[in-house]
Formats: sequence, structure tokens, C-alpha cells
Amino acid sequence: MSSIGKSVPRADGRDKVTGAAVYTGDMAMPGLLCGKVLRSPLPHARIRRIDASRAAALPGVLAVLTRENLQVAEPRYGAYVKDQPVVALDKVRYAGDVVAAVAAVDERSAAAGLGQIEIEYDELPAIMTIDDALREGAPLVHESPEGRKAPEFGAGASHIVHEQSNVCFHFRYERGNVDAGFAAADHVFEDAFEFPSAQHYPMEPHVSLAKFDGDMLIVWSATQSPFPQRQELARIFGLSLSRVRVIVPYVGGGYGAKSGVKNEAIAAALSRMARRPVRIAYSAEETFRTLCQPRARMIIKSGVKKDGTIIARQCQLYLNGGAYANSGPSVTEKAGYRAHGPYPIPNVRTDAYTIYTNTVPAGAFRGFGAPQAAYAYDSHLEMIARRLHLDPTAVRLKNLLGRGDEYAAGDTPIDCDLRGALQRVAAEGAKHFTLEAAKNSTKRGRGLAAAVKDGGGTNKAAHASVKILIDGSVVYSSGSVEIGQGMRTVFLQMVAEELTVPVERVQAAELDTQYTPFDKGTNASSATTVMGLAMQQAARDARTQLIAAAASVFGVSADEVTLSDGKLSGGGKSMGLHEIMRRRFGAAEGEIVGRGYFKVPRNAAVPLGYPSPFWEIGFGAAEVEIDTETGETKLANYLSLTDAGKMINPQQCRGQDEGAAVFGIGQTFFENLAYENGELMNGTLIDYRLPRFSDVPENFETIILEEGGGLGPYGAKGMGEGGILAVAPAVCNAVEDAIGVRMQSVPLTPEKIWRAMKEARAAKKK
Amino acid sequence: MSSIGKSVPRADGRDKVTGAAVYTGDMAMPGLLCGKVLRSPLPHARIRRIDASRAAALPGVLAVLTRENLQVAEPRYGAYVKDQPVVALDKVRYAGDVVAAVAAVDERSAAAGLGQIEIEYDELPAIMTIDDALREGAPLVHESPEGRKAPEFGAGASHIVHEQSNVCFHFRYERGNVDAGFAAADHVFEDAFEFPSAQHYPMEPHVSLAKFDGDMLIVWSATQSPFPQRQELARIFGLSLSRVRVIVPYVGGGYGAKSGVKNEAIAAALSRMARRPVRIAYSAEETFRTLCQPRARMIIKSGVKKDGTIIARQCQLYLNGGAYANSGPSVTEKAGYRAHGPYPIPNVRTDAYTIYTNTVPAGAFRGFGAPQAAYAYDSHLEMIARRLHLDPTAVRLKNLLGRGDEYAAGDTPIDCDLRGALQRVAAEGAKHFTLEAAKNSTKRGRGLAAAVKDGGGTNKAAHASVKILIDGSVVYSSGSVEIGQGMRTVFLQMVAEELTVPVERVQAAELDTQYTPFDKGTNASSATTVMGLAMQQAARDARTQLIAAAASVFGVSADEVTLSDGKLSGGGKSMGLHEIMRRRFGAAEGEIVGRGYFKVPRNAAVPLGYPSPFWEIGFGAAEVEIDTETGETKLANYLSLTDAGKMINPQQCRGQDEGAAVFGIGQTFFENLAYENGELMNGTLIDYRLPRFSDVPENFETIILEEGGGLGPYGAKGMGEGGILAVAPAVCNAVEDAIGVRMQSVPLTPEKIWRAMKEARAAKKK
Repeated sequence: MSSIGKSVPRADGRDKVTGAAVYTGDMAMPGLLCGKVLRSPLPHARIRRIDASRAAALPGVLAVLTRENLQVAEPRYGAYVKDQPVVALDKVRYAGDVVAAVAAVDERSAAAGLGQIEIEYDELPAIMTIDDALREGAPLVHESPEGRKAPEFGAGASHIVHEQSNVCFHFRYERGNVDAGFAAADHVFEDAFEFPSAQHYPMEPHVSLAKFDGDMLIVWSATQSPFPQRQELARIFGLSLSRVRVIVPYVGGGYGAKSGVKNEAIAAALSRMARRPVRIAYSAEETFRTLCQPRARMIIKSGVKKDGTIIARQCQLYLNGGAYANSGPSVTEKAGYRAHGPYPIPNVRTDAYTIYTNTVPAGAFRGFGAPQAAYAYDSHLEMIARRLHLDPTAVRLKNLLGRGDEYAAGDTPIDCDLRGALQRVAAEGAKHFTLEAAKNSTKRGRGLAAAVKDGGGTNKAAHASVKILIDGSVVYSSGSVEIGQGMRTVFLQMVAEELTVPVERVQAAELDTQYTPFDKGTNASSATTVMGLAMQQAARDARTQLIAAAASVFGVSADEVTLSDGKLSGGGKSMGLHEIMRRRFGAAEGEIVGRGYFKVPRNAAVPLGYPSPFWEIGFGAAEVEIDTETGETKLANYLSLTDAGKMINPQQCRGQDEGAAVFGIGQTFFENLAYENGELMNGTLIDYRLPRFSDVPENFETIILEEGGGLGPYGAKGMGEGGILAVAPAVCNAVEDAIGVRMQSVPLTPEKIWRAMKEARAAKKK
Repeated sequence: MSSIGKSVPRADGRDKVTGAAVYTGDMAMPGLLCGKVLRSPLPHARIRRIDASRAAALPGVLAVLTRENLQVAEPRYGAYVKDQPVVALDKVRYAGDVVAAVAAVDERSAAAGLGQIEIEYDELPAIMTIDDALREGAPLVHESPEGRKAPEFGAGASHIVHEQSNVCFHFRYERGNVDAGFAAADHVFEDAFEFPSAQHYPMEPHVSLAKFDGDMLIVWSATQSPFPQRQELARIFGLSLSRVRVIVPYVGGGYGAKSGVKNEAIAAALSRMARRPVRIAYSAEETFRTLCQPRARMIIKSGVKKDGTIIARQCQLYLNGGAYANSGPSVTEKAGYRAHGPYPIPNVRTDAYTIYTNTVPAGAFRGFGAPQAAYAYDSHLEMIARRLHLDPTAVRLKNLLGRGDEYAAGDTPIDCDLRGALQRVAAEGAKHFTLEAAKNSTKRGRGLAAAVKDGGGTNKAAHASVKILIDGSVVYSSGSVEIGQGMRTVFLQMVAEELTVPVERVQAAELDTQYTPFDKGTNASSATTVMGLAMQQAARDARTQLIAAAASVFGVSADEVTLSDGKLSGGGKSMGLHEIMRRRFGAAEGEIVGRGYFKVPRNAAVPLGYPSPFWEIGFGAAEVEIDTETGETKLANYLSLTDAGKMINPQQCRGQDEGAAVFGIGQTFFENLAYENGELMNGTLIDYRLPRFSDVPENFETIILEEGGGLGPYGAKGMGEGGILAVAPAVCNAVEDAIGVRMQSVPLTPEKIWRAMKEARAAKKK
């Protein structure tokens, strides 16, 4: 292969490093107005009165949007529950909830407008935690959430609706008989874990630009999901899908934050009122108040045999979904489905809940519930092994699924060697660990972890097209969004490979829902596999047509024509694409359009759901160094291991796995959205601690296996989320190794470690 | 049929009458510069020196383009001959030729920049007429025109290259033995005719906006031929086709003027230099100096039998092509092919020439050579009849081709009843003529004319797509340009008809060569037929997929499903498009994309060329009133008749035929580009006489037959050019009827009529 497996330079690299790349925030347009939103200062309140008349009268203010003048077909939106209003209607549900918006000629006028909107609230008790929400008689965040829809799920799963409750969504997965399993076990252990709510922090905040042109709505949006966004906007404004056009310029990072509607509907409503294009560019602080990762509490109870074999497991997961459902139900479903871990446990019962609270809405976040689940199940396994005085690695090896084993009935069998991967990470990890002893008050510890995540799961189908122009240049069109993950380069490589042309001869068309073939969105690491297969099929369809063209030019049959190195040969002749195109189309000219469609096949044996297109794996070996006086803990060395199936672009794969591991480091050591008196306390970059370059371990290695088991083109699987999974459990396992203290909650702030050490000493004394 | 044959309101009507329609000249963009060009004051000169340094130093001037800094891959362009430079290189070839261009922050600065460019010329003798050009030893307008390419033509035709000559292109058509035919004839008559050079005068002049973005060129252009323009621009700038994107906003009239490159390459070159977007909007005066209709001299010699049957004909056509070839060769080929008229003459020889002169370049113009040819052959026929003392109408009836007769070997047989049409126009015309006698010094006369034009001829193939979205709304995509002719509405009707949905549910995608399926251009009245067939096929492809979807939803076979009134029915169930789409695609969502391709089939019996997709006919009955004292001649009454095959939108068809007849009135009575001392004298709206509303005859009727013989959807043919054809010959026949004077040259200015009457009186006296 000449284009696959090569680290060809990123197609978007030059634009991005030179600043030539145009993001939605860079776009300029005549008459463009600045939109700004007014946010609730209270976590939970009924709105008694809104008076925007003084704001509307200000010079430079062209439109003020409140519930009083929101004229839409459907005022609420949401991927699974239509519970989020364009602007607050009856209540505000978190401190930061959008109450009103202003479009003005400049930022200053818009801010002045916001300052003149008068709102009277009747404050309600705030539900901040899962305990608050589930307490008997707790006030309801949503009195009656509308349009509930469950994500699709597979065999053994069900969806339980709780009316008049703060339970937004309840997913159950069951197999075998968990009570009988516990009865048959030699030991039963139950442990609880907590995982923080983190911010995605994409470099580019939420930005959209909307332009209502008669009854046609054009939106430029930094979105991962242009087609679902088109659908939501059409629904909100009562327009045909054909009258909504979503165009996606460069996007500066997604990580799940940019799925669904953010400020697009507000910008569109303002544009329609002002009859001018309107851009809303949230600040980083506002992005903190828009969407986050759900905080999770997880309780796992396992029945095990003396040798450490797990025979029964019950999981309870509570995800704090915040004020609006967003993709929360889907995250909860996935977290629940993943909670029992990559072990062939015959008896399982999991209940996973999305809980409404008066906090920042939570939803899709890189890892999509898997980091939370992996932290719980791998930590729990290590704890079981230690309680049984067994070697944790041996217990993992005993329990891990083998290649080809079933994770759950009807799902794709495990597509790589998990046990081999664990042995590899154990062996390679050891090589990277510090050899000298710890000094002074510091202690060192080492830990492993092994986790998997069903990948590509929410993206079930993709369309793509590949066009060969008369000069032999090639343009592909795809609804997958280049969000910095390198997707564009990967597709260029695939198309170049199939047509045997240099990568530079291929180009990506701008993503515009008016033209681009339909796609569900860019998420779940699905692009390389799911869209990749559509793209490969489109390129092959174009190639077939090209070969037929060459056959007619050469006067031979198509099977006598070969294509290699950009040359078509047959009947003793050889010509480039360009020449074949010219000769085939002649004076009428023309083009070849190849089309591709890939849909994840359902498993006929299982009536529900779609099997996972592939398995992402996240294995890690961590060495920590803990200052026993201060509790300060740092990740001294880290080895991450994943399986890409086949690396299309090795450099980009390494970048993805390293980036994912750094996300894991952030959540394990620093990141946590903190609330006080109902208000987010650390929603700025000064107060919120993201990982820095100095937090990267001294030895930071990533091993990417290419086991070739992927469903995707050339055996590729999706990747970029696996690297997060093992960090928290590996680090906590290492912490126990270092100081004998088990941490069941991350992030590992110095204070938390210090208190845990203190409690452990106190317990020992008792 | 529920959408076809109905005068549904124009889809672009509201936008246009409210001013909401955005043309290229309305577009605004940050940093947009104003481009202006400097034109040669001399008709023919060698450029000795250009100094643009003072212009470049002016404040506000960001780029000055001359031959000195023109850095392109290919400096010359042209549809058939690559003879026209982006800016003048060695010579200027007409007064108005572009020598330099400036991009500046505003119009004033750009104009100031032009004023500071110093150019020294060495004047050369100017070749203004066909006689000048063909004179032995005449200076050459082009020393060696490059890249000559002949249009495709059919059996009996050939292309003769004249090196070192002002003959740009020479087309010959031959059948039978014309000399033997003359020998066998009872009479041989030869007549010469002259037809003027007219201006298209589209309401919107030539406007383009170009933006070089790295190595990607985006052009917004008021063009009829976006894809050929993409190709020319790619060639000029040495870019892959994939790196040139031509977007077409609303276009304010084309009439042939907007085919090919106009100021797009200049705007692009300026944009690349200035690193800013640049718009060049020509004034009406500049549009006069950009492209016109070729002035024609035509000599027809016919051998006829006593009864008026034509048995041999020799035609010579000289078209003054001006300084650059443009589409001139194609116009010449078509004029030549049409010159012998719609008669089954066994022996024909035609020579048609495009002649280079130092006048405004001439090329495609509504009618494409047919009005010139028709003027000659129908006038000639009337003259023959009068000479033989036969009834001209009877002679026409005797000679006209019948339905199903062959116009030329291998071409499509005549697809309607020409003789019936003549009888109809004669009978209906009589009803509309003035009943009272002429008064005072005026005289009245009546005349008929009958002409045809092979339609759709230069557009051989078309691609289209029709997309059904998940909510049942529909978007079509086509490379045909809505230039005011109503094409968009016609396609919406066709798609609505095929999918049985209301026209309002269908929408057109913006034309953008990056996405829109390839098309050769909007010309030769081809859109309704050639693109229409591609569109119908695309809609039917979508319908087939929709029916298959419904079959799977209903659990029946596809042939048990029916679609009518937007409802799919089968197996006792009935659902709308929306519901079928939702059920078929489910959670994966998706869309149906239908694709259509139509290529005019070659006639296997004839190896060369493509048959005409259809025949446009132009029949007319004119009544003129002539003031014998002043020579002032006016068209008192006019009846135009054409055949649409089937009218998709009757109101639009009437508008097209009326508009075409008004073009004919302009050229017959007023329009003529006049030169003096090498300079265009009447290239402004003050000096150039376009037809006005007051020139529309009192009785102005149009009869549109629907004989159903069209190749296009529902039996439709193209239309909109036929209405021009009969005006000049019918009027001149009426003039002879009124005053006994034969006019062999239009326009019929009062002076020309007065002089002709005076000469006729003098001749009588002799």
C-alpha cells in the first residue's frame, strides 16, 4: 500500500499553523451582528416577569430575545429528551441557564443590552447532587420532560421510565441470574467509586453564526453533528429540512461538547428578528456553563470464586446529568452496558441512571461513560485480588475475555488479544519505570489497568461520495467533521490508496448539509471505520467506473484493465486518469461520481440494536510518586497501549492515544467542576486545572498494536478514546502499591490523598 | 398531471421583485476590493511599453495587473481558440481590449489607479470589416492563433483551417452535387443579405468576484457556464479542477453573453496579488465592449424548378467575429448548418466563416446564428416566389420539410408539423391585422416567415441529482443556471410531478461546482430538454428508491406499491413520504439520493456529431406601417408561433416567446453596433437603441403549439429562441408588400427605408 500506514502530513496542518484556517469565529459577513446571552444567576427558580423593553430601546441593539417574543414551532430541543428551551420559559434550571439574548452591532452594545433586561425570579430549592435529586419528595428539576426517547440498545437491555421523578433515564442490562450467582460465589465484595465532572475544554468555544434568508436558514457552526443539528433547527423553526443549511468551517476540537444544538437556535432566532446575520461566540467561561462530563457514582458488587473468577456482578451507576438531558441518556446507556467490564461473567445486572440536577448539563464527553465504568471495574478487580491475596495481573488474565469471545449476546466478538495486550503492557511498563529508589518523604508505586470500550456505537450508518474530475483530480465529500482528530487526512489517504494517486491529488469538499451526503455525526471514534468504509466504497465505486471507462477507451473488457500508480493499463496501452477521463467523456465532458454507503449490519440472531463496529482498548502501566507529607501525587511514568487494527496514519494515531491519555491524567489528578451554593465555582481557566505540559510524565510512551481485526478499511478500527480508560485505575492501583491506601474517588488532589493517608494511619492504630 | 402544464408562480419571483435576490454585484465580503480594467483606446496596436509603477504606489491601490506581472500557467483562453489574453500581451486588438487592471479599496481609488498607468502604443492599421479582413495582404489580427478547436458537427460537414489569415474558422457543409443541381434547375437566383451586430444587453452586466485562498480559487460569477469556466480558470492558473470552485448566485440575464470567461480571470489574478477578494463589475458601457452578436453577410444562390421547388443551394456566410474567437466558431458552424433552411434540398454547399477583425469580439447570442440564417433563407424564398409570380406562402408550403422528414443525414427528424404551423400562422395572422386602410402618407403591408433552429445542440449531456430528506422535503441539484428563463421553476415542477408532491416541497440547491453534478452550460434552449431528462431520471431514480423503501415498510414487493398525491400505498396501508422515510431509515436516519444522466444519443448510422435534441420553430406574421415621406417603419401587428412540444409552465413559455420576438424586433428595426474610426460609437444606452415597451406592436400575440414531439420530459422541447427567427424576414416581406421595396439588410432605419424607396423610384424611372 502506498498511502496507507504512512504518516503523511496533516491536510489541515499548514492552514492551522499559519493561521489561515477559518473557524466560525473568524468569519466575517456584512451586517454581521454580535449575539450575547443572559444567564441565570440562580440554580433553580421560576421566572415571574421579564421586561426587555429598556434593552430593546438601546442604540445598537437590534433584537432582544426572551420567552415573551420567542416565536418558534417547538421551543424545546434535545437529542433524547426535548427538555431544553431555546431561552428559559417557565423556570431556570441551573446557574448559567440562558434566559435571554441580545443581537447588537458590536459586543459592547450587546453587553449593554444584557444589562438592561429586568428579570424577577421566585427562587426554588436547588438540587445539586444525586442524593438531593433522589431524596423522597425532592423538588423536580423538570415537572414533565417531553419527547423522551431511549437510545437503541442490544439484547438483555431495557429502558425503564420514571414519571414524576428526577430520574431522567434508567437503563437496565441483565443476563443470567445475579442472585443465584452471588449465592454460588465463595466471596461477595461490594465497592463504590466516584468519578468527577470535567470540562471538555475545546480550544474553540461554542460558536455559531446564523443567517435567516427569507424562509431559508443558513447556519455556520462549530459542530460535530451538522445533520442532527439541521434536524433540530428545522423542528424548532418549523422548516423543511431542505430549508436549513448547516455549513461547518474548521472546528477547533470537539470531544463530544460539539454534538447537538448549543447556541445555534438562539443565533437563528435573533437573526430572524434582526434580519441580519448574527454570531454568538461563547467565551471559555460560558463554555464551562454549557456542557460537561457527567459526574458518576458507581457501586459494583461481585461474586467471585476463591481463584478470583468472577461469576456474578451487580452494578449501579448514577450519572449526574445536570439540568438538561442532552446526550446523557446515551452516555448512561453506554456506561451501563460497559459497567460489568471485559470479563465473561455469566450473571450480570446493571442499573444505570441519568439524574436531573440543577447543575451544568452533562452529556457526551470523550470516552462516553467508559472512563467512569473502567475506573470502577478495574479498581474493583484489583481490590478483589488484594483481598484474596492473589496477584492482580493474574486475576485480570484469568478473567479477561479472549479474542473472539462475546462481550454480550449479539455483540461483535472481541477483535484483539486482550490477555496478550496485558502481558505486553506489564512487560513494557516495567522497562519504563524508575529504577532508583524514592527519596526523602516520597514513595513510589506501580499499577496496571485494562479496559475496553465498544467503539463507533452511536454512529450506525454513513454515506460518502468520491468524484473524479476530468483532469484526474479527485474530491471527496463526507459529513464527518474534521475536529482536529485528523479525519480529513485519513480519508484523503484512503481515497488516494483506492485510486492509486498521490494524496495531493485528492481534496475534501467543504461540509455543507445542502450537498454533503447524510451522516449522523462525528463521535464514538467512528469516522475511520464507519465513514471510512463508506469512503472506501465510494472510492471503489469511482474506481470501477474509471476502469469501465478505460476498458471502453482501450477496447478491452473491464477485467483486462489494471490500475496502479495512477495509470490504467490494458490491451497493451497505458494512460493516466486524466487521459482516460478526457477520452471517455470527449466533448460532452463529465465526471465520475462514486458513492458509498455503510451501515453497521444488525445481528440477525438478536432483534435489538446494532453490534459495536469495533472494540477500543485502553491498557496502562502507571508509576506514581507521592509526597507522603503533602499528599502531592504525580504521574512519574506512564505507558499506554491500544490496538488500532491498522494505523492509516501512524503519527496521527500516536497523537490520538497520547491526547486521550492526557485527558485521563487530567481527570485522575486535577479536573473536577466544583459547586458552592448552587454555583459553579471553578468555571474559568484560572480556577479550573487542566493538565499542562509539565504534567506529562517523564517517560510517556504509547504502544499501538495493529492486530488487523478492525471492521474498517485495511483492518482499521477507530481510536482516540481508549487511551483515557486505564489512567485512573492504573494510577489508583499504583497509589495503593505506593502507600497502601485505596482511592475510590478521583481526582487525586493532594488534600484527598493526605486525608486518606491520615485516615488509614488512624484505622491502623485502632 | 398535477404540476406539469400549470403556470405555477416563478420560484425566483418573490426574491426578484422584492430585491431580496442576491446577485454577484450585491455580494459583500470583508476586505472585498474593487477591481477595474483599463481598456485600449486604439483598435489595433502593438504595446511598446507599460509602466504601472505610479499606479501601484497610489494609496488604496493594492494590486495592478499588466502583462509585466501576469504570472499564470497559460495567459490565453477561449472556448474554441485560445486567443484571448487575460490582459493584453503583445498587441491590443480592439478599442476596448483590456490592457491592465487595478484592485483598490474603493471604486475611486481603482479609477485613480487606472489613470496612472502609462502605456505606449505603436498603432497598426485597423481591420474593421469582413472586406478589410479578407483583402489580399491585409494585416493579421492574430499572427498565429493558438489551440484551435472545431466544434463537433455532423455528417457532410468539415472544418477547413486557414493559416496566416484573418479567417478564424471555416465550416463547410455539403450534400448532393450543387453544380449539377444548378445545371438541372429552371432558374438560378442569388441574393445577398446583411444582419447587424447587436448587444445582448442583459440587465446585469458582467460581474465576478474572485477569492484566492491559498491554492484554492473561489469565484462567484454571473455565468451561464460555470463548469467550462472552472476548466478555463484551472487551465489559466495551472490548478487542478478540484481547486477551482465556481459559485453562481442569481444571474440577471444571459442571452449567450455569459458563456465563457469574461472578467473572472482578471479578478482572480488581482485577488492572488492583493491576497484579498476582488470584484469586477463592468458597467453597461463595458459590457457593450465585451461581447456582441456577430455581424453577418450571407449570400444564397438557389437553383429552382418552375414551380418553386428548390433543388440546389449554395450559401456563403461571413460572420464578423471581432477581435477574439469566443464561441464564434460554434455560432458559425450552427449558422452554416442552418443556412440552407428547412427545405429538403438535395444539393447543398455551404461555406461559413468566422472572420477576425479589430471590433468587439462576437460570439453566442440568443438565436446562435439562426436569426441571421433565417433572415437570409426566408427572404430569399419570398424573393424567388415573387420573381416566379408564385404565392410565397404556397412556395413555402411546397418546400417546407414535413414532420418526420430529415433535415440533414443523421439528424433528428423534424418533430412537428411545419406546414400546418405555416397555415395556422397565415390564418391567425390575418385575424390580427388592421382592418382600416392606411391613412395619409402611410402604407401598410403584410408578410409571413417560417424558420427553424436545431435546438439544444451544443449541450450534449447533463447530470442531475434529486435528494429526498427524512422529512419528505426534496432538494434538486443541477448545473443549469437560472438566468431569468424560468428554468428553476420548470425543474421544481418536474421533480414535484415525478414524486407527486406539491411544488413548494421541492427546492433547488445553490449552484456550486464543488458539489453540483457536472453540466456543460446553459445554452441552446437545452435546459428543459437535456437537463430536464437528467432531472426526470434523477427524480425517477429517487422515486424507485422511495417505492422500494415503502415496499420494505409495508412488507410487500415494490410492484405492489403505488405513489400518488404524496402518499405511498401498498398492502392495505398508506403513508406519506415523511413517514416512509422515517420508518425506512429509523435511528440510523439517512436520505435518498436519485441521480440522473442524460446524453444525447449519437446516431449509430452517422459517425460524426450528435443529432439535435429537438427543433425550435419560429413562424411569424407581421404587419408594418411605413411613413413613405420619412421612411419611418413600425411593426403594427405581430403574431409569433412556436411549438413547445409540451408546455411545462405555460406562462413562462409565453414570456419566453414574447421576449424572443422582442429581440427580433430590436434587430429588425433598431439595433446595430456602429463603428467610426475604429471605435464603437453607440456603446451606451443613450446611443444604442434597444426595443422599448412602446415598440411592442398593438396586436402582439404568441401561439404556442404543444405537438408533443419533444425529446424532453412529457414531450417538451426547449424554447425561447424560436420567436426571434421570423421577425426580420416577415417584416421585410411585409415591407415589400407595403412599398414594393426589398430590404436585404436590417435594421430598417427610416433613412435606409427612405433611401431604398428613393432608389426604387429612380430605378423605375430608368
